[in-house]
Amino acid sequence: MRYVLEIAYDGSNYGGWQIQKNSVTVQQRLEEALSDAVGAKVNVSASGRTDAGVHAAAQICQFDAETTIPPERFPEALNYRLPDDISVLRCAFAPENFDCVRSAKKKTYCYRIYISQRRNPLKDRYAVHIRGAVDLDKLKFISRVFVGGHDFKAYCASGSGIKTTVRTVFAVNVAVSESRGSTDVEISVTGNGFLYNMVRTMVGTMLGYAQGEISEERIIQSLKKCDRSCVGKTMPAKGLTLESVEYPFSLFTRAET
Amino acid sequence: MRYVLEIAYDGSNYGGWQIQKNSVTVQQRLEEALSDAVGAKVNVSASGRTDAGVHAAAQICQFDAETTIPPERFPEALNYRLPDDISVLRCAFAPENFDCVRSAKKKTYCYRIYISQRRNPLKDRYAVHIRGAVDLDKLKFISRVFVGGHDFKAYCASGSGIKTTVRTVFAVNVAVSESRGSTDVEISVTGNGFLYNMVRTMVGTMLGYAQGEISEERIIQSLKKCDRSCVGKTMPAKGLTLESVEYPFSLFTRAET
Repeated sequence: MRYVLEIAYDGSNYGGWQIQKNSVTVQQRLEEALSDAVGAKVNVSASGRTDAGVHAAAQICQFDAETTIPPERFPEALNYRLPDDISVLRCAFAPENFDCVRSAKKKTYCYRIYISQRRNPLKDRYAVHIRGAVDLDKLKFISRVFVGGHDFKAYCASGSGIKTTVRTVFAVNVAVSESRGSTDVEISVTGNGFLYNMVRTMVGTMLGYAQGEISEERIIQSLKKCDRSCVGKTMPAKGLTLESVEYPFSLFTRAET
Repeated sequence: MRYVLEIAYDGSNYGGWQIQKNSVTVQQRLEEALSDAVGAKVNVSASGRTDAGVHAAAQICQFDAETTIPPERFPEALNYRLPDDISVLRCAFAPENFDCVRSAKKKTYCYRIYISQRRNPLKDRYAVHIRGAVDLDKLKFISRVFVGGHDFKAYCASGSGIKTTVRTVFAVNVAVSESRGSTDVEISVTGNGFLYNMVRTMVGTMLGYAQGEISEERIIQSLKKCDRSCVGKTMPAKGLTLESVEYPFSLFTRAET
């Protein structure tokens, strides 16, 4: 049977989602908990392989297991075995022919910054401090440039061996609020898929424009000619959270919440 | 010269504000940074001595020092020397006869909880997870009982050698919002002063009422007869943040922000 999980994690102390040699990862911790609960080696895969330090509010994962444990019992059974910075929110049987990567239609990532003279320790874990002036109107204006189908090769960290770097961005939303003497900005990006470091480089480029360092023309070139010299810096991982993954059907019924 | 500081800290890794033998405290780290910056031993005191694990968004502190360093230079000089979970936001010369404890007129603490079936790692650092049903109307209703001048002896952890346990609560505000599948509740309490554990025990008592475990009559008894057997449990420290301290004059001009 194939099971689907919705999980949340604070990525601060992990080397990302995917299992690797030199650091502890979320996949590793989850497979350890699953294997212990089920009593056999279980492999788990995720809709998006978040990078080191990136957080998830609702990552979707799947695993196949021969077990009599009903889905609704998995959250408690796994959370009991997981560290405090990973939590299983929901579990259900997967729909027929479900694949958490291929079946996904949309993903939304949110990048958080806060603009203030001084760093704020109470905001610093999930948002990045920006000291200089940011023109918020310019930030909102330039967000539209990315919407649509584009070759995001210039926004992809080199070395990733993927077939195509064309992705469709459905929406970029910039939400601004004030709290504790700083301006908090949430940049939400919804797309059909994302390249390695794509959102973090998009946000760095948007900020470069809003801070007067990169022109609109250069950003248009970065998309039209895939010119990596036209993009801004890649922002730190801690400001990025995978917020949601959308499928053409609902994975969880209300009863499982 | 007397200087006044506004500081923020994440209290997770500290044994509270006040210097003590067996754990690192915020006061200790701040005195180390100040003494190093000024080049002489500097003592610092705070408007409120937050307990172990309690956070501060705008704690007010003071210190006396003979130095040529102008106030506006202190935030940078100190933040350079402080760990990332403590940040000096502003500094100014203190007004004449200023004392950060005695001159304070109001303090506001905020206690944060989130109500959901599952724990959420992205909320867990500054809020406490509540799994069971909470009647939010009852929570708002009972908040009014505490407003006014009362003997809060029943809400004070035993062993604190203070003269009077009478305090005035000016307001208790309950703000509710929904995010990421949970109900987030912020309980803000403004008063002229607070006893050791007072807000945490008030919130535990309010939740006891809102969860049907404590009657209104018992809470009224807890205030009228100082009966400690009538109060609820003391909530964990991590949900509590010192939000602001008010003085009858402004301590900082806009230029120092």
